[in-house]
Order: sequence, then structure tokens, then C-alpha cells
Amino acid sequence: MTDKVVQYLQDNREALLNRLYEFLSIPSVSTDSEHKEDVKKGAQFVADYLTEIGFDKVEVIDTEKHPLVFGEWMKAEGAPTALFYGHYDVQPADPYEEWKSEPFKPEVRNDRIYARGSSDDKGQVFMHLAVFEAFMNTTGELPLNVKVCIEGEEEIGSENLTQILKEQKDKFAADFSVISDSGMVEQGQPTITYGLKGFTGLEFTLNGPSSDLHSGMYGGAVRNPAMAMAHLLTSLKNEEEVVTVDGFYDGVEELSAEERKLIKEVPGEDFETSTGVPETTPEKGFTAKEHTMARPTMEINGLYSGYQGEGTKTIIPSAATAKITCRLVPGQDPDRIQDLIVNHLETHVPVGVTIDITREPLSAKAYKVDPDHPLIQKAAESFTKAFGKETVFVRMGGSIPVVELIDQLYKHPVVLLGFGTPDDGLHSPNESFPLESFDKGMETIVYYWESVSKS
Amino acid sequence: MTDKVVQYLQDNREALLNRLYEFLSIPSVSTDSEHKEDVKKGAQFVADYLTEIGFDKVEVIDTEKHPLVFGEWMKAEGAPTALFYGHYDVQPADPYEEWKSEPFKPEVRNDRIYARGSSDDKGQVFMHLAVFEAFMNTTGELPLNVKVCIEGEEEIGSENLTQILKEQKDKFAADFSVISDSGMVEQGQPTITYGLKGFTGLEFTLNGPSSDLHSGMYGGAVRNPAMAMAHLLTSLKNEEEVVTVDGFYDGVEELSAEERKLIKEVPGEDFETSTGVPETTPEKGFTAKEHTMARPTMEINGLYSGYQGEGTKTIIPSAATAKITCRLVPGQDPDRIQDLIVNHLETHVPVGVTIDITREPLSAKAYKVDPDHPLIQKAAESFTKAFGKETVFVRMGGSIPVVELIDQLYKHPVVLLGFGTPDDGLHSPNESFPLESFDKGMETIVYYWESVSKS
Repeated sequence: MTDKVVQYLQDNREALLNRLYEFLSIPSVSTDSEHKEDVKKGAQFVADYLTEIGFDKVEVIDTEKHPLVFGEWMKAEGAPTALFYGHYDVQPADPYEEWKSEPFKPEVRNDRIYARGSSDDKGQVFMHLAVFEAFMNTTGELPLNVKVCIEGEEEIGSENLTQILKEQKDKFAADFSVISDSGMVEQGQPTITYGLKGFTGLEFTLNGPSSDLHSGMYGGAVRNPAMAMAHLLTSLKNEEEVVTVDGFYDGVEELSAEERKLIKEVPGEDFETSTGVPETTPEKGFTAKEHTMARPTMEINGLYSGYQGEGTKTIIPSAATAKITCRLVPGQDPDRIQDLIVNHLETHVPVGVTIDITREPLSAKAYKVDPDHPLIQKAAESFTKAFGKETVFVRMGGSIPVVELIDQLYKHPVVLLGFGTPDDGLHSPNESFPLESFDKGMETIVYYWESVSKS
Repeated sequence: MTDKVVQYLQDNREALLNRLYEFLSIPSVSTDSEHKEDVKKGAQFVADYLTEIGFDKVEVIDTEKHPLVFGEWMKAEGAPTALFYGHYDVQPADPYEEWKSEPFKPEVRNDRIYARGSSDDKGQVFMHLAVFEAFMNTTGELPLNVKVCIEGEEEIGSENLTQILKEQKDKFAADFSVISDSGMVEQGQPTITYGLKGFTGLEFTLNGPSSDLHSGMYGGAVRNPAMAMAHLLTSLKNEEEVVTVDGFYDGVEELSAEERKLIKEVPGEDFETSTGVPETTPEKGFTAKEHTMARPTMEINGLYSGYQGEGTKTIIPSAATAKITCRLVPGQDPDRIQDLIVNHLETHVPVGVTIDITREPLSAKAYKVDPDHPLIQKAAESFTKAFGKETVFVRMGGSIPVVELIDQLYKHPVVLLGFGTPDDGLHSPNESFPLESFDKGMETIVYYWESVSKS
């Protein structure tokens, strides 16, 4: 049955690409109030397409900021229900002068579609819509029940989505979720992301003298807050990249031999080449891939104290501030980790300075699904069938807040079926998406819906 | 003989004060090119006064920026020659709105003269000129030979003074120098500053990834330059405020029991009150007064890395920068200390980052004169006689570049006869100078010139 669906996608490729280009031409930049009407147009595009495909109850749900599009097709009696999530808003395109072609006039070069949103996430949302069209226009139905939820605020924090999902939990309820807003480890390499890291953060300031002091008159009498900060920071993590906050690793599951093997099999990004560092420095006992994918991290995101201008200003700064965030793995509760760090800081403040701590209110739990789960295994098989290559399984160092939200609300598996590539330039000038991902990605989705329809 | 000189100063107090107010009314702000003519007026005021007093060879030496005033009186056969140094330029007066009276309209309140430059340094320069006048108008001569050197660029680095002194070394040659551009430990407390600290500094940057990285994707793979900086900084100084750079303390003379006693006798600034720190943290084994006055220090003046805006930005910064300066004591060569620190940094760079070091080109050797030197003892005695209180001896944590310059060129004693007080508000709004310092300071100078005339 899937043959004719795939055939439909191939036969209608040009029309579909043109329709995608139409979608990509709408500058639905959610952060910029000047684009408010464009964002609305983006929502309408999705709603119109869903209606045309044959979805029911298609709604453009207005919010205080940007609308959320909902639609459902619930006629597959006895089949499971999938919630498909995506977003139609995009990042701003500036700096414009760095784009080789216009960000909102899609252009194909080097077998890639260049346009803002081509990868993140309009391109991938569109692939799903096209696959739904293909099923409906060839078989007259979808192989399973589908609820579609496409928001317009992903790039600005998904505030209204969060509220709507919480308030209308039943409306969006499903057996599992599918999200295509991530990527593959390299182009053409089928990749299943089965884990995401959690997140917590805080900012703290060490206060010394009530104003900057003359370093000659007071050097030797007062604690320098910048040096006190250095001592406090080194108490958090040692030079072997091991976090030294009591209890930080409590509950973290050991990396199994099986997972280490999975990680090892992932085609490796050469970190030295991609980042320009002289050498990688993972946590003692782990590889850089293991640490980035599956071990918790603590990073200083910002640090400042005293004089930053040219040349010398001989002061003792009155204060020093650091911002830190942690990426967490399953077993680590973000609130507890924040508490542990706050407690550590408060008990390790050097003599001679005082501390002010601001807790970052946003946090996320880590997400992980069993890679052997049938819904995951079927995704891997569909991927392999479409791309002709064994699928690799990865855990990602990043966090996708909506995954944590869905996990928390519905406790059902979230399948991350991402077709982006490391070269897509998300959030950067010249964002692009490979035509190969477009074609083989849609094929993957066709196989996947078909295979899970019998779950 | 001094009685009638002192009497002259008392009898002519009002006229002298009025003349001082005239001097203070000239906005000779050296850093502001709009005040270039005013600075010239300041120089002319000094030159005219010197001529009127009876100085010979009075010159307004033009430079690329602001003029230097020279004058000499060399008729005291067989008596020593003093070089009197001061400056007639002042700091800018802004923020104007914080002044309670106009910065360039002197006003007496609470027995203090409020005006920009009243303490630093026009007020103190004027006191010397008035004393010369008093000697000439009562005895018809000065008790010793005097060369006067009053510059107009002290607040902007004394660049032309340095060049002129080096080029015309003989013209300014003397047996000793007197400078009144410093202060007493508290109002009414005679104070001899017999030591100043030296100075060296540098700035260094730790470079990690070639651009800021996503902390989720790369946390665990690369060294965070901010954390590497914390580790590197803590290798420079421990939590007991002991510098841990090899060789840093080599050649530093031990603090003698006698000096510790001198320091102990200095009426103590209550550092907690004046700076607002919860407690002082001097070097292990020393008091805060000992450390600030007589032990070398190392301070971070500036520190920065990554994101400094509001809230959270989950990046690994590409670099981290620190600026540090050291205050040095006799026995420490600034260039050698800079070399030691550079070598320490280069050998302690954490794995995974590289270092760029910029040496601060300016440096100064520490200056110290034997407090038992007759020229110093006589200054102390003159102070005590005028103020009616035992003189204390201090070493200062700050550096006065001209002292180092004179020391280097002439290798003769520099007597720091300062009458300012900690409440003068140098470089701040509402700068002021106590009338007590004006009166008793001039008396001190009279006694001093008289006593050293027989050296």
C-alpha cells in the first residue's frame, strides 16, 4: 500500500516543492512584532492545508501572542492515535547581508533548499502535511488516527502552547507523539534521538566592597570578588571535568555497555575540527561523545567583574557575577540539582564576600525513551528502509522543552523523527535543508505511519 | 627667625586665601581640550606668582600639550638645593550636579575649602608658594636653594614632564625633592609617607572554541574557557591571599619588628567601615595594614567571558579574559615579576584552551626612603611642631609615578610632605581641603625649610 503513497510523493514532487516554497516565503518571525500578520499568515497556511487534506475540526486557536493550529483525523477505528507536533514560526533572518539568497525567497543550490525555516521547522512540518495529503489522495484515509498541533511560538518559549496543553489536555491526548524538529548526525545517516538532557541554571554575584576600590590603597585588606569567584567556581567542577557538588551524580544511571556501544557506533563529529579547540576534555572516564550525549554537564555561560575596557584600570571590583547552567540526565531532578548547587555555593562562599543567588525559573527534566521500544524500533526500521542505511541511536545534549512538557502531561513515548543535518545552519544566515532529507524523509514518514498503524 | 615668617602667614591669611581662591577659580582641567586656555592660565598664575616672589629664570615651558612652569632661587650659598614638584592641573569636575557649591567657585564650609583642586594639588602647591613669599617678604631670602617644577599634565600621565626631566636633567638637579601631593592618615595627624609600592600588570585571554557554542551540544566535549580561567586564576593566589607564582616573593625584605611597630602605630582606617566588606582578608601572617602598606599584592582588575545580559543564554563562551596588576615592594623588579607571571600562566594553561598574554607596558619600581634619614626625621619634627602631635610613618599601597621618575633620574631622597586628608574627596565631587591643613601645613613647611637649610 505504501508504494502508491511514495509514488504519489514522487509524481507530485514539483507541486509539493512549490507549495513548500510558498510556506517558506511567509516571514513568520515570532519574536518580531512587525511580523505579527506574517505569523498569522503562517498559521492560516497550515490550517488551509489541513482542511484541504481532509482533517476535521481544523482550528486556528488565537492566543495572546501567536495562534496555534489544531486539526484531527480520527476515523481509523481500532488504530492508535498519534499527536504530531511542529512549529510554523521561525527565527529572525538578520544579519541579512550574510545571506547569499533572500531568506524568504527559497532557492535551491547544491541540492539544498536555502530559506529561513527550511529545516527549522517549516520544512519538516510541511513534509508531514504532504505525507498526509499523499495518503488521503491515494488511499482515501490515513493509516492511523492523527491529531496535529502546530504552534507559532516555539522560537520564543512556547508559553501559550504550554498553557493550552495544560488546560485542554484531553483534546490533544494521544497514544504517542511524533516530532520532526531535530536532526541526523550527518546527512544521509538515519538517526533516532532517544534521549534529551534536562536543564537547570542559576546566576550568582559575590559582593565585596560597596564600590570599586583603589587597588593600591586597599589591595591586601579586602577580598577581591573576582578572585573569590575563581575560587568558588573551581569548587564546583575540577580539572577532570567532574562536578564536585555533593550529590550531583546521585541517581544518575550508569552508562551500560550496550549504550556505550550505541554511542560508539554513532558516526563521530570531529569536535576539534568543528569547534576549533586544541583537544577535547570530557569528564574523566568518559569519551567526549559519551559526555555530550549521556552524562550531565555544568557550564559557565557568563562571567564578569570589574573593568573590561582597553588597557589597565587599577581597581578592586566591588562584585563578580557568574551564570551557570547544567544539562541533566535521567535520574536528576532539576529542582533538586538547583538546590544542591545553591547549598554548595552558600556553604563555600569565601570569607570576605557575600553572595546573592538568582535561580533560573525555567527548568526541564531529562527525557529518555527505551531505544528498544517498538515505536522507536519501527521508526528506526522506516528510516533504514528509506535511506538504505542502518539507523544509529543517539542521546542529545540539548533540551527540547515541548518533549518534557508532553512527557510530563501524557507520559507517552515521544518519537523524535528528525531529518535536519549538522550543516543546516539553524538560527544562522543561509539556513538550508537537503533535498535528500526532503525526499527520503517523506518516505520514512510514510513507512512509519504504515508500520505503527498496527501497533 | 621662623617666628616672623609664621607671623607673616597669619597676618596675611585673608589675602593669601583670596589669592588661593583666584588660583582655584581657574578650571585647569588637563584632560579636556576645551579647557586648554584655562590650563595655560593656571601655568601663568604660577609663573607670575614665582616672579613676584623673586624667583629667577621663571619659565613657562610649552609642550605638545600643557606647559610646565619652572623657576629657581639659587642664592643660598653653601645651603642645599631642594626641587619642589607639584601640579596645577586638575581632574574634571563632572558630575557637576553632585557638587553642593560650584567646583570652580571656592567656598568655605565646615572649616574646609570646597573647590576642585583644593587638595589635589593646587591648594598644596599654593601653600609652598605662600611660604616662599613669606620668607622673601620677611627675611629677604629663602633659607635654601630652591628649584620649582609645577606641571600641567599630572592627571593625564605626566608624559611631557618625563621627557623634559630626562632631556634637561641638570636643570632640575637638586639634593632632594619635596612633593606635597599626598595626605595624612587622618585630619590633624602628622604623617610621613616613606614608601610607595611599585607596579606591573598584564592581561590574558584563554581561547577555546572558535565561536560561542551551544552548551547542550558541546558541553562535555570542550573545555569551558571561563572555568579554565577560574582554575588558572586560583593557581596565582591561594585563599590565604598568598601569591603562588614561583619566585614572586624573592628579594622581598622581611618586615622588621621596628616597621611592624611603626605600622601598628598608624591610626587605623577601619577597613570594614570604609569599604563595606564583612571582614578583611590580609595575607596569612600579616595584618591588613601591613599587607596594604608593606607587602606585595596581586589583584584581578577585570574579568569577563560569555553572556552578560539579563537571564540565561546557554552557551559555552569562546574565550575568557582577565586583567591583573601587582603592587610591588622594594626588592621586586617589575619586569622580572611580569616575566614570572607570564611564565607561570604559560606553564599552567589548562588543557583544551590556548592563551594570549598582553603585557602592560607601564610599570614602576617601589620607592622607599629610610624613615631614619635626617631629611625625613626633620620633616617629621616640623610636622609635629606645627600640629602639636607625634608624626606617624606610613608606606602607601599606591604608586606616584613622578617619585619613581625622580628616584630613577636623581637617586636622591624624595620627601612626601602631604597635607590632604582621607575626607578630601580627590577626583570626586565636592573636593575639599581643611583650613587646618592649610594653616598648619604652611607652618610645617616653614619649619622644614628652615631645619633643612643647615643640612
